[in-house]
Amino acid sequence: MSLASERNDIELDEKIKEQHRIDSLNLLLYMMLLITTVLTVWMFKHRRMRYMHETGLALVFGLVVGALIRYTSVPSAISHVEVKAVSHPTYNGTLPPDYLWYHMKRKLENRTYAYRLTGEVEDLTGNQFAQQATFDPEIFFNIILPPIIFNAGYSLKRKFFFRNLGSILCFAFIGTTISAFVIGGVQYTFGLLFTYKPSLLDCLYFGALISATDPVTILAIFNDLHVDVNLYALVFGESVLNDAVAIVLVTAIENYAKLYATAADGFEAIAFLKAIGLFFYVFCSSFLLGSVMGCATALLTKFTHIRDFPLLESSLFLLMSYSSFLIAEAADLTGIVAVLFCGICQAHYTYNNLSDEARVRTKDFFELINFLTENFIFSYIGVSLFTFPKHQWDFAFIGCAFISLFVGRLLNIYPLSWLLNLRRNPKIPLNFQHMMFLAGLRGAIAFALAIRNTYSVGRQTILTATSIIVAVTVVYGGLTTQLLLWLGIPVGGEAEEDETTGLNQMQRTRPVYSTMDARPNATGARDNPEKARLVRLWSNFDTAFMKPLLTNARPTLLETLPMCCHPLARLLTSTQQLTQDTSNKYDDDGEGFLEGDDASLHGAGGDSGSIHSNGRQMTAPDAAGATSPPPAASHM
Amino acid sequence: MSLASERNDIELDEKIKEQHRIDSLNLLLYMMLLITTVLTVWMFKHRRMRYMHETGLALVFGLVVGALIRYTSVPSAISHVEVKAVSHPTYNGTLPPDYLWYHMKRKLENRTYAYRLTGEVEDLTGNQFAQQATFDPEIFFNIILPPIIFNAGYSLKRKFFFRNLGSILCFAFIGTTISAFVIGGVQYTFGLLFTYKPSLLDCLYFGALISATDPVTILAIFNDLHVDVNLYALVFGESVLNDAVAIVLVTAIENYAKLYATAADGFEAIAFLKAIGLFFYVFCSSFLLGSVMGCATALLTKFTHIRDFPLLESSLFLLMSYSSFLIAEAADLTGIVAVLFCGICQAHYTYNNLSDEARVRTKDFFELINFLTENFIFSYIGVSLFTFPKHQWDFAFIGCAFISLFVGRLLNIYPLSWLLNLRRNPKIPLNFQHMMFLAGLRGAIAFALAIRNTYSVGRQTILTATSIIVAVTVVYGGLTTQLLLWLGIPVGGEAEEDETTGLNQMQRTRPVYSTMDARPNATGARDNPEKARLVRLWSNFDTAFMKPLLTNARPTLLETLPMCCHPLARLLTSTQQLTQDTSNKYDDDGEGFLEGDDASLHGAGGDSGSIHSNGRQMTAPDAAGATSPPPAASHM
Repeated sequence: MSLASERNDIELDEKIKEQHRIDSLNLLLYMMLLITTVLTVWMFKHRRMRYMHETGLALVFGLVVGALIRYTSVPSAISHVEVKAVSHPTYNGTLPPDYLWYHMKRKLENRTYAYRLTGEVEDLTGNQFAQQATFDPEIFFNIILPPIIFNAGYSLKRKFFFRNLGSILCFAFIGTTISAFVIGGVQYTFGLLFTYKPSLLDCLYFGALISATDPVTILAIFNDLHVDVNLYALVFGESVLNDAVAIVLVTAIENYAKLYATAADGFEAIAFLKAIGLFFYVFCSSFLLGSVMGCATALLTKFTHIRDFPLLESSLFLLMSYSSFLIAEAADLTGIVAVLFCGICQAHYTYNNLSDEARVRTKDFFELINFLTENFIFSYIGVSLFTFPKHQWDFAFIGCAFISLFVGRLLNIYPLSWLLNLRRNPKIPLNFQHMMFLAGLRGAIAFALAIRNTYSVGRQTILTATSIIVAVTVVYGGLTTQLLLWLGIPVGGEAEEDETTGLNQMQRTRPVYSTMDARPNATGARDNPEKARLVRLWSNFDTAFMKPLLTNARPTLLETLPMCCHPLARLLTSTQQLTQDTSNKYDDDGEGFLEGDDASLHGAGGDSGSIHSNGRQMTAPDAAGATSPPPAASHM
Repeated sequence: MSLASERNDIELDEKIKEQHRIDSLNLLLYMMLLITTVLTVWMFKHRRMRYMHETGLALVFGLVVGALIRYTSVPSAISHVEVKAVSHPTYNGTLPPDYLWYHMKRKLENRTYAYRLTGEVEDLTGNQFAQQATFDPEIFFNIILPPIIFNAGYSLKRKFFFRNLGSILCFAFIGTTISAFVIGGVQYTFGLLFTYKPSLLDCLYFGALISATDPVTILAIFNDLHVDVNLYALVFGESVLNDAVAIVLVTAIENYAKLYATAADGFEAIAFLKAIGLFFYVFCSSFLLGSVMGCATALLTKFTHIRDFPLLESSLFLLMSYSSFLIAEAADLTGIVAVLFCGICQAHYTYNNLSDEARVRTKDFFELINFLTENFIFSYIGVSLFTFPKHQWDFAFIGCAFISLFVGRLLNIYPLSWLLNLRRNPKIPLNFQHMMFLAGLRGAIAFALAIRNTYSVGRQTILTATSIIVAVTVVYGGLTTQLLLWLGIPVGGEAEEDETTGLNQMQRTRPVYSTMDARPNATGARDNPEKARLVRLWSNFDTAFMKPLLTNARPTLLETLPMCCHPLARLLTSTQQLTQDTSNKYDDDGEGFLEGDDASLHGAGGDSGSIHSNGRQMTAPDAAGATSPPPAASHM
């Protein structure tokens, strides 16, 4: 593939990204309108004003925004070529135009029809239904992925996540980067040996996107079997963050490609550094954006009495969360990262302010949507393997991909575990490392990233390889139960599996005691003072400032801030917060960040009564979240 | 507009419908895959088989179906024209092709790009964001409307609906038809007087689509004020069915146009009769389809133990309901009618079989989705009035439309009320008639119908007029409170309104006694024996056969069927049904069809404890469903 055509591909990439940005802005516009409507409706109801229904408000706001768009925005450049059925079209661009206008003489009148660019044509045959059985990749990105990722954050078992934070961050950031570059490198090297010749950038792109692991199968089985909580936290935490990292890596590689293509020859290093800078910029900004949106929702739910109207409350929650995704996408950041951290903040702060109905409703809603969308994606991967018109079956590439995946995962898990074990206490035992190595399935995220851009042949090859890899690893995921037994990893909970571990009835409803934490006095936090200090610092700040500010829980800011700030503190304390029973302390003490010295104690007992229900993932006696009753119901 | 170009428009119509059918088939395919997955997962869980996760199953089923599509379907005819940047394209069709293929020489390679038809170009300017702030009309039809309509059926207050069934059917069928033809006729007549010249068919099309009333605003206010239950039932019932009728009318008029255009000159009458036949065929088939899907869900939930897994149960419920819409659309019936009756069946039968969690979850889910989608549509109407590129501002047409709407509603409500009052007892008082006349707002359905096809200028004019009408009537809806007071219609429930009616605290939580039913012994059912007999017949059949067959309620078929059928009856009776406490009779006795002589008694007392919660719409002390707690929660 020539450099010129590669540059063209990059320009096409840009075009697609621009289109995506506009789509996001567009959806965001409506989300903002709905948020405004919800808040206004609440105000109306609150003040008992009845002269306008919510639909009327929605419409009026819509009119205002529509008028603004119409009369203020400047026409942006859409290229189109006019094609007359009887004359020569003329067009001099190097990229295909966005639109073709087709002039036709229809009987008596002249009419013009618009045609929108849908992509490159490779195969000049293909049937209509097959082409139709594929969806616009934008739908995956804008509609299907956000709830899955949000749900991951919202139902994150935060206590165990934060206890293993250092290791998780290490695997997610360093591990994913290693994996991406190893896979890209191996794939490129194989390419030189075999007939196929993918470009280095395509290989790296492939490496980055295929490094997003998807543990749904594994985690469902972990849930069923109630495996060790720390192993669960490591696998779950790694995969959640690793999606985010992989997505940002993909963006960074695209950026590098662009910078590289436009820079003069000597500036490779600068392009590389710029790409790294962009990586951190994108990740941190997205993280901040998501957190800010989560905190904003917490403030809204704390200081308005919207909790009197659970339907409005749930709507606001949903709209704010989705907006965090859309804002990030519209601002050229990554929505996935934003929506993930938004979900974590919503669970950590906002959840505490919600009414009981809204708690059940939001949990149930996301659980249901998550279940449906996840299965939809996998159905779709299956169908599209046969019907998607742009598959490029390069069997050498696919075969090599399995090998490079293996190598990439190997060089990610074992060296990092070794490094971590140097300082970490409790250590990650070897059988856990094997399980983590084997838990590296690929799923929805990798597929969604791959299908997003299939304009060039290289990208189409990547899509095909990704589909195959996802299909193989997901189907293989069913073997996990056997693997767990084979690796001797302690499982418990269900009668037919725990005979060997000999747990009694009471313990069955809790996560089994970790082999890593076999010594109840293991003071992991103290053995690693530096990490502990950082986490403790945040934990103290969170307890003293963030929670009192953002939630209705006690203590209030009046109690935690110094005397001089009391006027401000009074302003930021809601009446509800002041009047509520002091026994009704922050609801998720059992779920919060690593707090004080109890960090190394097992929190299993605290889970069972936690209103947060995140504990359910391990304590529920049934499988996969599919079977647990709405967790907060017991508090109604 | 010439006949030839009108024929072309009809052909284009066909093309759009074909596209829609394919879209529906497409979505349906995935729904079927998901249903299969859900059922298989349930079976796996039920039998404690763990070797495959649901995502794996979804993928495997997807692969199978994808392969089937790929290797069995025959390529259908998609037209495309190849456009070379340097040579003449040739195309001889009378319709624009579906795709243009654009051949370009890009630096070193030749590449071909596909462009898809998006519509006619009227205005050769227009900016990108504005064009983007509009969605594909298919999204309205396939995604946004179904939950709204389903929720109308699912939360239908069936007792009062069935008590007024005769009047509601009369208003819905005869009234809507009158309205459509009056509006079409008046609009056409005005057209002859003014400068604009819409075709008669376009006028009728407009009449039919604008006859779909949308009472969300009115009903929300009725809920707030707890107006008379019979008035509520009439307005709600009319508007729910009337959407269905209007949609089928629109289809019938399109069919007529097609038949008319293709028939020889003398066959107008035949085309007309055929269109009428089609109307009834489409309505009845859609009704049947929806009911069958509802009953199928009831059977599935009765005879499988899927209720042990509420998440799977809710997913199945949702997927089956949505499939009823898609099957109807794919079979050229109307999905709206199907999904409406599916909703009614789900509430009447399936709801009884659901687990408590699934009851709360489905109610909550649809309430939330309904709230969001409804407000989204109205926001969209507002924005698109300014940004939709295909508006045709024909102010004469719009002005006349308001007059014809007024006349159409006038000739619908008052004559039919007069006719009904001849036989009906209790009668519909005049102030109720005024309220019904004024309650004829237009909303989401009319807009969705109008935006669905905007290929021709006539249709674009209709869209613009519809948007304006919707905007005006929805905003005007806020005046209803004043209207109710002005018309002296009894309202009650909230302290600030009921001082005049002098209701005591206890009565406030119930609907006020109807002025129509002021005589407690009024035996409306007996005064109108013919109607009563029909309804009674169905009610008996329902109690003796349908409920025992489809739900887990007592009595069982063993008790209701004659001795000779007992082997079959045993087969159709679930263990749960046999073993459950007899005191746990069919849950919604208070909500069921008109049963025996209690038909004319007030059911208000029965509502408050009804598990069905539909009574909530009138008994809940707060507004618009937004404020009520999840109704079934009290039963958990």
